[in-house]
Amino acid sequence: MPIKIGVVGYGTIGARVAEAVMKQPDMELVGIAKTTPDYKAKTAISRGMKIFIPENSVESWKKAGIKVDGFIEDLVREVDVIIDATPKGVGKANSEMYKKEGRVAIFQGGEKKDLVEATVVAQVNYDEARGKRMIRVPSCNTTALSRISWFFEREYGVERIIATIARRAADPADKKEGIIDNIEFDPIKPPSHHGEDVRTVLKNLNIFTTAIKIPTTHAHLHLINVKLRKKVSREEILDALSEERRIMLVSSEDGITTTSDVFELSRHLGRPMNNIYENVVWVESIHSEGEWVYLAQAVHQEAIVVPENIDAIRAVASSLDAESSMNTTDRTLGIVRGRI
Amino acid sequence: MPIKIGVVGYGTIGARVAEAVMKQPDMELVGIAKTTPDYKAKTAISRGMKIFIPENSVESWKKAGIKVDGFIEDLVREVDVIIDATPKGVGKANSEMYKKEGRVAIFQGGEKKDLVEATVVAQVNYDEARGKRMIRVPSCNTTALSRISWFFEREYGVERIIATIARRAADPADKKEGIIDNIEFDPIKPPSHHGEDVRTVLKNLNIFTTAIKIPTTHAHLHLINVKLRKKVSREEILDALSEERRIMLVSSEDGITTTSDVFELSRHLGRPMNNIYENVVWVESIHSEGEWVYLAQAVHQEAIVVPENIDAIRAVASSLDAESSMNTTDRTLGIVRGRI
Repeated sequence: MPIKIGVVGYGTIGARVAEAVMKQPDMELVGIAKTTPDYKAKTAISRGMKIFIPENSVESWKKAGIKVDGFIEDLVREVDVIIDATPKGVGKANSEMYKKEGRVAIFQGGEKKDLVEATVVAQVNYDEARGKRMIRVPSCNTTALSRISWFFEREYGVERIIATIARRAADPADKKEGIIDNIEFDPIKPPSHHGEDVRTVLKNLNIFTTAIKIPTTHAHLHLINVKLRKKVSREEILDALSEERRIMLVSSEDGITTTSDVFELSRHLGRPMNNIYENVVWVESIHSEGEWVYLAQAVHQEAIVVPENIDAIRAVASSLDAESSMNTTDRTLGIVRGRI
Repeated sequence: MPIKIGVVGYGTIGARVAEAVMKQPDMELVGIAKTTPDYKAKTAISRGMKIFIPENSVESWKKAGIKVDGFIEDLVREVDVIIDATPKGVGKANSEMYKKEGRVAIFQGGEKKDLVEATVVAQVNYDEARGKRMIRVPSCNTTALSRISWFFEREYGVERIIATIARRAADPADKKEGIIDNIEFDPIKPPSHHGEDVRTVLKNLNIFTTAIKIPTTHAHLHLINVKLRKKVSREEILDALSEERRIMLVSSEDGITTTSDVFELSRHLGRPMNNIYENVVWVESIHSEGEWVYLAQAVHQEAIVVPENIDAIRAVASSLDAESSMNTTDRTLGIVRGRI
């Protein structure tokens, strides 16, 4: 019996997760819930998805001439697991409905950690989701930081991590106004929330993060300094990192020197919706100096949490172990390891 | 007798230094050397400056109808000190002419450290310029890093500095093409040159710098993590930094939260050419955690080296001590300390 899934919210994350669910051999996408009858509703239908809407939006869908399959409540009742990918704060409001219907729900990083019983990044703490009714996958930045921090912590032990996060000001499709020709602090009073958020996954990590917002759209960029508990050579780190799950290594030798190059790479890889699910680490950036290690990684903010949502579904709704779940997820989505 | 100055190169730095020289009670601007007969030649003349040109450009100046006062060689012969603010590499070519005429020359950060006998940031190592014939003031980023590093080193002792530099991709007046919607490494293989360049001023500092280039024009931004040799509270640092020369403290309480705000501040201060000569440190950014300290500073890349050039002139061509020179420079240019 496949796990029945409903995706509530069909924006940046929801659309990508719904597509990824359809590729899983052990899952069935019952449908998506959506409020606005726009072009994304039409492309969802053309991809074979059923549409569920809030009762109070019936008129606008009728006016748009788009046939729907029911109300959100119907979707919730029909599924085993809800992926809530609604805007920040809406998930909390929706959580009452999921509880009332006794459904398991997976929220995104925009929701507060107090809403849920566990925050999960698959390759770090998949098993923490076991038996929980409400869990969360963290934001894109926290996911990427958790993966790379876990690598260093597990392999060598971490004394301290100092990370600078250069955040894209808006997603490529955003039409709202954003900063131009400017650098904004996010926030000015340190640390940024990312370090604390990583600690919802890696409980006692000594990590200090600061973030700035800059006028780009394609990716976040992390400049990471780690003090390990022992001296490790650059070569050792590069070898170990080449084997690490969901880390893609790129090189300026292949002409990949900027975040735009990473965006272009995703298109040449034929990835759906330009998705890059991996942390993108530059080979040349890896630097070792005694116990100190440095590296730079790009984060595709729209896609990196997609495999995390898929694995979170199995963690709460199946008996599959972490490795088997991630193997299936990575195979179905074409996720790579090591040098591209 | 005033010190006679010639400014060779009237671009971003040269124009600002020439103006600053005219404000000094102990200096005389003999003239500027310039290659192209453009609007900046006309505004320089209207500001009372004499123009000297390369012999091979006589025709273009005649054609433009701009009267000049002689050739570059004439300027060099008439002065005590040359400020060479020509593009990277041109200074090296010019250095032969300065040597031949026996003139003292001050180069900018674009020239290699091997060209000169000393690299000087006034409040750090003014006296190193004494008796030298060829010196250099470092680049904007190195100047700002040297000032703040010196503060920490002198007051508390530094164990290690980890600095991330977000570089503006172009100056406001640049018309050449630059990156848009992109982040470029500068360089991808760490460290960036800035740390090594700081060590031309602060000889044994343990500083590790990395830099990215982003699509902005108004300022560089430095995110700086310092491990001190002892624990110091945030309040102690803020108090000491409030007294430090050429450090301006700004606050989000006053509505200054971005680099554009700093640009606008310079205009409201009535600064010529929007010049901000100081390191601009955000009060809220200062953070202390055991021996680790963090702060963020903006750097106006066009102006920060102007006072350094003025003090470098006195260091090579007068008997004035560092404090007296900097006091005169700071008074004449309106340079402030502490919270704005």
